[in-house]
Amino acid sequence: MSKNTAMQSDLENLIKYLSKLPGLGNRSAKRLALHLLKNKTSLMLPLAESIYRTAENIKKCTECGNYDTAEICNICSDAKRDNSIICVVEDVADLWAMDRSGMYRGKYHVLGGTLSAMDGVGPEDLNIPKLLQRTKNEEVKEIILATNATVQGQTTAFYINDKLKDLGKNITRLAHGIPIGGELDFLDEGTLNTAMQARKAV
Amino acid sequence: MSKNTAMQSDLENLIKYLSKLPGLGNRSAKRLALHLLKNKTSLMLPLAESIYRTAENIKKCTECGNYDTAEICNICSDAKRDNSIICVVEDVADLWAMDRSGMYRGKYHVLGGTLSAMDGVGPEDLNIPKLLQRTKNEEVKEIILATNATVQGQTTAFYINDKLKDLGKNITRLAHGIPIGGELDFLDEGTLNTAMQARKAV
Repeated sequence: MSKNTAMQSDLENLIKYLSKLPGLGNRSAKRLALHLLKNKTSLMLPLAESIYRTAENIKKCTECGNYDTAEICNICSDAKRDNSIICVVEDVADLWAMDRSGMYRGKYHVLGGTLSAMDGVGPEDLNIPKLLQRTKNEEVKEIILATNATVQGQTTAFYINDKLKDLGKNITRLAHGIPIGGELDFLDEGTLNTAMQARKAV
Repeated sequence: MSKNTAMQSDLENLIKYLSKLPGLGNRSAKRLALHLLKNKTSLMLPLAESIYRTAENIKKCTECGNYDTAEICNICSDAKRDNSIICVVEDVADLWAMDRSGMYRGKYHVLGGTLSAMDGVGPEDLNIPKLLQRTKNEEVKEIILATNATVQGQTTAFYINDKLKDLGKNITRLAHGIPIGGELDFLDEGTLNTAMQARKAV
């Protein structure tokens, strides 16, 4: 792109940064940059301001790894939530998804990823030591391993289960099976097998 | 989303702005926001800085509508470029694409969109009055109508041709046909028809 004399370096830089965002290539980054320039006051400046403000104000909760403006996030400090259950998730997006359902009123623990030998991610790179520390608290009775149903997610759940199993706590995981609204014809064999094996009496 | 107590308002705002970008929905906006927070110093702050700098420094060239740091862009002020040809494009992205090919060394004119009765875009909403003014210059011998080969692009080209035809200049348009590397089997009938009608002796 450096040979393209028609493009100024500020704009080239912006496109470079935009193309580093997940799911965006060079072409979509160009489109975004032009869209921003076309909507300078309504979108471009407010977006930059919003990125700055978020970068400044939002930090990781030292207890669970959720993002919040406070040291201890509003979930961890919520007295109305059940302290005896910790739901372990991979990412903050998973925490949001669980909390959106409104069914779960316990606490969370965000790992910040999954174990991966290929990417060189070990237990010390994730928020696992803090989880082990939290689960030693007498108040905690149950740990729900709600990592994704992927190979990496299951491996990570397996590892954590191994570390926690001698503490004498209830360790559970989310049920696997047919998603509500799911049509059998569109589901993969792994899901169908799991659902068949875990079938229940009506 | 306002009911989601797990998400702070700064973060909610950032996601709102990100989801206004073309091609991004609420889910991808969340993913982007979390990716930014994970890469605060390497991506989040530089991106905000880059958006600010671009918004401040980049303006529309008063002559052709290209984006540049100067009032008159580096293409319009380039003495080595041919002043006798103006290539009319819809958007700055099209200008970049044409210039990347390196074949064309004339000037450009960026319309900033296409005529659209449905979206209420008339000639005065586009950079058309300035084009009419530029083409009256004696130096200009040829105007290439390089709008997209879409209904809107062709309508816009037709309108401009109508306005310019009495000036006694050469008005041309890009050739339509099989793209280089294109396989007939994958091309639509419109392209094949056009290519057949415009066939040439070998």
